[in-house]
Amino acid sequence: MRLQTAIDRVSVERAEEIMQKIRGCADIVEIGTSLIKDFGLEGSVSVLKRKFPEQCILADIKTCDEGEYEFRKAYESGADIATVMGFSSMATIRACRNVALEKKKEYMIDLLEVSGEKIEKLAQEFPEAIFCLHLPSDKKGEGFEEMVHREMQNLHGVQKIAVAGSVTFDKLELLKKVGMDIVIVGSAIHKAEDIHAAAKAFAEEIRRQ
Amino acid sequence: MRLQTAIDRVSVERAEEIMQKIRGCADIVEIGTSLIKDFGLEGSVSVLKRKFPEQCILADIKTCDEGEYEFRKAYESGADIATVMGFSSMATIRACRNVALEKKKEYMIDLLEVSGEKIEKLAQEFPEAIFCLHLPSDKKGEGFEEMVHREMQNLHGVQKIAVAGSVTFDKLELLKKVGMDIVIVGSAIHKAEDIHAAAKAFAEEIRRQ
Repeated sequence: MRLQTAIDRVSVERAEEIMQKIRGCADIVEIGTSLIKDFGLEGSVSVLKRKFPEQCILADIKTCDEGEYEFRKAYESGADIATVMGFSSMATIRACRNVALEKKKEYMIDLLEVSGEKIEKLAQEFPEAIFCLHLPSDKKGEGFEEMVHREMQNLHGVQKIAVAGSVTFDKLELLKKVGMDIVIVGSAIHKAEDIHAAAKAFAEEIRRQ
Repeated sequence: MRLQTAIDRVSVERAEEIMQKIRGCADIVEIGTSLIKDFGLEGSVSVLKRKFPEQCILADIKTCDEGEYEFRKAYESGADIATVMGFSSMATIRACRNVALEKKKEYMIDLLEVSGEKIEKLAQEFPEAIFCLHLPSDKKGEGFEEMVHREMQNLHGVQKIAVAGSVTFDKLELLKKVGMDIVIVGSAIHKAEDIHAAAKAFAEEIRRQ
């Protein structure tokens, strides 16, 4: 199981400090949607990738349309992984997939508010994608375990599954048990009093057999 | 019927030139998602609002989650109208609506890929919103007229309806006939050889009784 640490709602300077503190702990650092919309890809992803070239970076660009344009921009800014919303048209997701394959990069399909029926269609057509089970944070973590069990059943044949939204330390055992590939942790790490200690604890628990 | 001109996939300097050329023609200037994701709200919306304080500006931020955070940032950057995706959770759209009402600003719900059933729920709960019928440009304008007729039926009780995606001059008559409130025109204006002439022609046709 891999650890993805999300960085959101901070300045780029603060994001850099956080990346220093979680170095070696996070397999993937997510530059959150808030940093991209506040400062732009150039002002956030490009700047941070130049400072941490060895770090795998996910740009949470949440593409809804204009798939080819947005994915080219994201990868050209230094992202190793970019995200597209699963609710988008199949044409948009295909456009994203095609850019990812051309650039030999990974891409993530965010399943926020996507129906079970659509998830099955996506799992069939995009088996190489990372599928992200996403609980909107506006729901304050409601129904987490039920969602995980329900959604895992819809994702037969998918190899890479990630989960985001209200992930806390106590949920890791459940996530390991169901065979999750990527665990996305946000405020539980970047809002911790000791960010390095929190990231280290998550990383050790995730890597523990 | 009001004219909204969308500016996308250009530099902020080019966006400023376009805004000079369409001054007095566009009721609303849309700072497209591409400018926000490429340069950030501060680098696009704030900069352009400072240069054109009298112009009504829509920030096409396409919020999918984190409604309160994103809408506060959009309005604080100078946007008069901000957009939220209709596929988002009701909790997210309520968070956006609450910020809009608090700031006494308009907000737009983008109906891209939203089911008829969800559209009816949205129309009931958010009658004051601008509802945007959005044909993803990745579909290259397929099925425009059918979509307009079908979606207008789902929007009973909604006062402000906008349409985006592949709008060309020849579609204005249909859109007037169905009582559209806002027509969103992108490349047909900002990619025209004579941008001012194109914007003027759209504005005159739209205002003609």
